[in-house]
Amino acid sequence: MPISKNITAAIQNSSVIRKMFEEGIRRVKLYGEENVFDLSIGNPVFEPPPEVKQALLTIAQSDEKGTHRYMPNPGYTTSRDFICRLYQKETGLSLATEDVVFTTGAAGALNVIFKTLLDPGNEVIVLMPYFSEYDFYFSNHGGTAKRVDTNVHFHFDFDNLEKALAPGVKAVLINTPNNPTGVVYNKEELDQLGKLLSRKSKEFGYPITLVSDEPYKNLSYGVDTPSIFNSYDNSIIITSYSKDLAIPGERIGYIAISPNHEDRTQIQNGAVVSLRILGFINAPAIWQRVIPLVGNAKVDLKPYRENRDLLYDHLTKCGFECTKAEGGFYLFPKSPIEDDREFIKSAQELNLLMVPGSAFRRPGYFRLAFCFETDFIHRSLPLFTKLAEQYGIA
Amino acid sequence: MPISKNITAAIQNSSVIRKMFEEGIRRVKLYGEENVFDLSIGNPVFEPPPEVKQALLTIAQSDEKGTHRYMPNPGYTTSRDFICRLYQKETGLSLATEDVVFTTGAAGALNVIFKTLLDPGNEVIVLMPYFSEYDFYFSNHGGTAKRVDTNVHFHFDFDNLEKALAPGVKAVLINTPNNPTGVVYNKEELDQLGKLLSRKSKEFGYPITLVSDEPYKNLSYGVDTPSIFNSYDNSIIITSYSKDLAIPGERIGYIAISPNHEDRTQIQNGAVVSLRILGFINAPAIWQRVIPLVGNAKVDLKPYRENRDLLYDHLTKCGFECTKAEGGFYLFPKSPIEDDREFIKSAQELNLLMVPGSAFRRPGYFRLAFCFETDFIHRSLPLFTKLAEQYGIA
Repeated sequence: MPISKNITAAIQNSSVIRKMFEEGIRRVKLYGEENVFDLSIGNPVFEPPPEVKQALLTIAQSDEKGTHRYMPNPGYTTSRDFICRLYQKETGLSLATEDVVFTTGAAGALNVIFKTLLDPGNEVIVLMPYFSEYDFYFSNHGGTAKRVDTNVHFHFDFDNLEKALAPGVKAVLINTPNNPTGVVYNKEELDQLGKLLSRKSKEFGYPITLVSDEPYKNLSYGVDTPSIFNSYDNSIIITSYSKDLAIPGERIGYIAISPNHEDRTQIQNGAVVSLRILGFINAPAIWQRVIPLVGNAKVDLKPYRENRDLLYDHLTKCGFECTKAEGGFYLFPKSPIEDDREFIKSAQELNLLMVPGSAFRRPGYFRLAFCFETDFIHRSLPLFTKLAEQYGIA
Repeated sequence: MPISKNITAAIQNSSVIRKMFEEGIRRVKLYGEENVFDLSIGNPVFEPPPEVKQALLTIAQSDEKGTHRYMPNPGYTTSRDFICRLYQKETGLSLATEDVVFTTGAAGALNVIFKTLLDPGNEVIVLMPYFSEYDFYFSNHGGTAKRVDTNVHFHFDFDNLEKALAPGVKAVLINTPNNPTGVVYNKEELDQLGKLLSRKSKEFGYPITLVSDEPYKNLSYGVDTPSIFNSYDNSIIITSYSKDLAIPGERIGYIAISPNHEDRTQIQNGAVVSLRILGFINAPAIWQRVIPLVGNAKVDLKPYRENRDLLYDHLTKCGFECTKAEGGFYLFPKSPIEDDREFIKSAQELNLLMVPGSAFRRPGYFRLAFCFETDFIHRSLPLFTKLAEQYGIA
């Protein structure tokens, strides 16, 4: 074995999506970019809000010295305090500077948090369907995923959750608004989850940490995105600016620890050590400086909402079963046949690229992203009609 | 145990340096910044070369679209090809785009490479003294450090190396120019190391990878810094722009795989998977764009050389035993007493902050950084005189 066995296996497992990706490139070359509809990856085509460009320009023109040096690992105090004020306003809770740790995006933040929390053999509950690379964010640090099914609407199934909560479960990871389903958890169900976790924490004699991964928090369509901080004390929020500022290539996000977490100080200190030893050291300095300058600016939600409506209406009209996304920029319809990979292959034959639900541990579904120009989405619609006809659901 | 046992231990172990750091802050508050000489951390006070500022400005002013989006995980092709051309020029070897993987600094790169290479139980040879956080870059991924002593001049001790090279050793990690010693390995010793590793690879039936961590490569004072690519085929170079562009807070570096590495393709693919699953995803987009625009610009070496000479001359005049650094920005003199922590405490009492050699797994020495204004270094000299008098070596 020339390289790590785990990595060799991961290369092989990721080869399905990689092959799809390569097939997409082949098709673009063969049929032209305007004729291939790649809805597989959530890489928004929209530009960041003008405030981002203005902030970058301000920083680039500044004569301030020392702005590219090391700062304390968790980031600049001014940037962290800016985040504290956001949470104060939203939740009424007073976070200290130390509760906020800037990270290289949400994926970096999740690795830092699970490195901090997990001992070998610990389990983390995840709700199917989910972004399957989460599994690595546990196994990298000796933990394992404990997979729990959601209900038919992709919301919490409290019976399943209660059954899964056993000693050794160190954390529960949720993602709201959800990738791939578009579901947003409401206040009532978060409160109910909080109560369940409080009861189980008491029973087990240690706090079960609720980790909420929320990069789509500011992309919701007419629903609230309530904070877990107001539903459960032992909680940690992970987020990034990749989606709401449309800067996924820049890797900037943060960890926010609830000031009411029983292990608040240990988690603060542990996150700093984890940042360092995993090799992140600190989040890119320039993006830490951009964040407070940008204030509350976000990408324009109008095209997202239009795209969602356009696709959802067309898909359901065609006969696809689909939950209407309340947030994020994905739809997760039911595949007309059980074998979602087979279905995805048929779509590919029509130059329509999507991801099979099995890649999110929910076979029988498929995911499509709608973070593209509305005209592009428009031009993709006839292909869904064709697919529906092909599978006799139209 | 509220958080991970390993992390709890790491917090406790790092508390020595943390306490020093806090003591430094306390002293700055008490005695004023101009009266405390913190030579403990390698955080250059110099500004990046003007080309960096110009490149940032060019990027900030550009109307090009999509520059903050996801790109392929290992980085932009144009930026990677820029690196390939540098190696072509230096070593005569033709690296392919795929041989270069951009990373969030060298610490990120090292984690990516050891995640890629190591199976649980594998060993990595490291040469004492060394930056002790290397240990985590192995243990994070199931590996362990196999510590080998250098000779009295901090160069390779080939007898020790040959003894340590046993089956299960997957890699050898070197750091040149060296932190903390300032040693630069010359062509002859790198060739000899290459020959030894070739022989042992053949003997063990798998390639032993030589990983060279080279963030100080462009900071040398009158000596060559030969490439390991010309001394050994199964080699990987890790570097960052933190030091030679003075942008350590920005986290930009890369992995370069020798095109002659037996496992070249597996390592390329493995590094991409590791980038993803460790949560790095890709190096910050904006800094990947800056690198080719900056060309060959580097920080001005004049103050570094002046500082080195000033400190080295003064220290040896005072009676300290010290190797003259040929590269990097550290000196690693012998402590006048065996207990280096005790010595560091005495220095601290004089408001002179440095790091004990035991933090680099070579007790009886101490490390001081010289990446500061020459005037600042100048003003610190009387404190070394005082220390020498205090310990009766003057």
